[in-house]
Amino acid sequence: MSTRSLKSLSKDEVKDLFNSVDTILTDCDGVLWLHTKALPGSPEVLNEFRKMGKRVFYITNNNVITRDDFLIKCEKLGYAAVKEDVLTTSYLTACYLQDIGFKKKVYIVGTSGISRELNLVGIRNIGVGPDPLRVDVATLVMQDFKLDPEVGAVIVGFDEHFSYPKMLKAASYLNQPDCLFIATNTDERGPSRVNDCVVPGTGSMVAAIETCVGRKPFLVGKPGAYIIDAIRERYNVDPKRTLMIGDRCNTDILLGTRCGFKTLLVLSGVNTVEDVMQWEKSDKKEDHELIPDYYIGTLGDLLPMLS
Amino acid sequence: MSTRSLKSLSKDEVKDLFNSVDTILTDCDGVLWLHTKALPGSPEVLNEFRKMGKRVFYITNNNVITRDDFLIKCEKLGYAAVKEDVLTTSYLTACYLQDIGFKKKVYIVGTSGISRELNLVGIRNIGVGPDPLRVDVATLVMQDFKLDPEVGAVIVGFDEHFSYPKMLKAASYLNQPDCLFIATNTDERGPSRVNDCVVPGTGSMVAAIETCVGRKPFLVGKPGAYIIDAIRERYNVDPKRTLMIGDRCNTDILLGTRCGFKTLLVLSGVNTVEDVMQWEKSDKKEDHELIPDYYIGTLGDLLPMLS
Repeated sequence: MSTRSLKSLSKDEVKDLFNSVDTILTDCDGVLWLHTKALPGSPEVLNEFRKMGKRVFYITNNNVITRDDFLIKCEKLGYAAVKEDVLTTSYLTACYLQDIGFKKKVYIVGTSGISRELNLVGIRNIGVGPDPLRVDVATLVMQDFKLDPEVGAVIVGFDEHFSYPKMLKAASYLNQPDCLFIATNTDERGPSRVNDCVVPGTGSMVAAIETCVGRKPFLVGKPGAYIIDAIRERYNVDPKRTLMIGDRCNTDILLGTRCGFKTLLVLSGVNTVEDVMQWEKSDKKEDHELIPDYYIGTLGDLLPMLS
Repeated sequence: MSTRSLKSLSKDEVKDLFNSVDTILTDCDGVLWLHTKALPGSPEVLNEFRKMGKRVFYITNNNVITRDDFLIKCEKLGYAAVKEDVLTTSYLTACYLQDIGFKKKVYIVGTSGISRELNLVGIRNIGVGPDPLRVDVATLVMQDFKLDPEVGAVIVGFDEHFSYPKMLKAASYLNQPDCLFIATNTDERGPSRVNDCVVPGTGSMVAAIETCVGRKPFLVGKPGAYIIDAIRERYNVDPKRTLMIGDRCNTDILLGTRCGFKTLLVLSGVNTVEDVMQWEKSDKKEDHELIPDYYIGTLGDLLPMLS
């Protein structure tokens, strides 16, 4: 199947498309804002969706913030939102542990974004904060570190205090076959380079731990299909009547493909129409999963088409 | 081809085998010693090799120590050795940079084992030692960290002070396409578990940086085939007349297969005869590359067969 420009659709086709969806999932950075600046027209489009009776969810692989932090950002940038609209991977990780009836303690490689969401649902956790090597590795192994027998899961998210002792502790817990291994997301690096810096993302830290334990984590964030379980259960969402909007095909669009959503790529972020054209020519099934049903320049460009 | 127990060979066959080699490369941990204890008979076998006129090289993926450090360990455990016999990956990395005429500066993720070997050949380097996050990531990116324009290579070895700022710096240098990316080795974890701890190895740190830069490093250590270039050039070694001895098939034996050495597995370390039997039954070419020509219980078991 090939992608279509939303602008090439007739007014009736656009109307039919939006009549066929009840739920809209939208990525945030690159769709709604770039870093701290709202993208023009995007807030108005989301308002329009709501006027049309659509349920809108904000869905982000960010796990450094909680849903409450996210609401503060929304308010600053002019986006209407209540807590139930917000799906951060910090929150989704807490949902997942609730869903499986997890009762033990979690060792977190990550920030307080995760621990605060876990605290809200009463899941005990340790690990957040700086943990540099205070002794040498031999002393750490032989004396300093004792496995906490209560720990039954390791969550790896973005951790600016990522360190060798954290790797060692995560790997040692995960060496117990019944210890759950959960990754909030696997984004390799930050979305853009600032000042010639590459900002390593959660995926880099997951790769380090995955390599030393020799097994793969359960992926909570995009493009992991858990998200649809989380919201179907909680909010009665029908995948066939859901539209996923995003700027990155290997997370946003791939999630949509995997869950059976309709998909819309906006060109205000990571991927371009040229990328999509290349995947259309490819022989590989996995490339075709990255192709959105529709694309449009910016989300704001939708506004005149909706009224 | 299937593996053979050295003990199943006749005296003449053993004689022919050792007449067919001039050079012997031996792994260390698991073959010559376990941690700080010599394996019985191994020193005598190496002495016997030398009496037979063989050139013996010690070859280890260890990069935390220099060749001088290694000699101290050899003396303690009863192994005769001079500096020229010792191939640590810290030393081999210095050899590689010399071989390619590298003149710039190196950013090291690793210990002074690497920097001291580089200093000995006059290669400038930075990065060794603790580098925890002292500010927040945004400040690190925007103000604190400036790329050193002299840096033209990143070496990743074992680093007990591995940290987020080190990942960010390594990735930022490597984002320049002409910056060399070198891994001393890719061993995922330490050879054995002590006190329920899994000790992450160099390979875990390499995986983290590889993931955020999106490219593969040049591998200096086993099973990378660079080693044969390094010693062929320096010591006039003939691969066809070389025997590789090791306890780990995916480094030692694979190196031997790739370089056209004869290979001998000792069973005093990582791999077992059962592992080898499984690879013999496998359809995969890469499994067959792990199969040694010969195996024996311990290196010491060779002693009566040599006299």
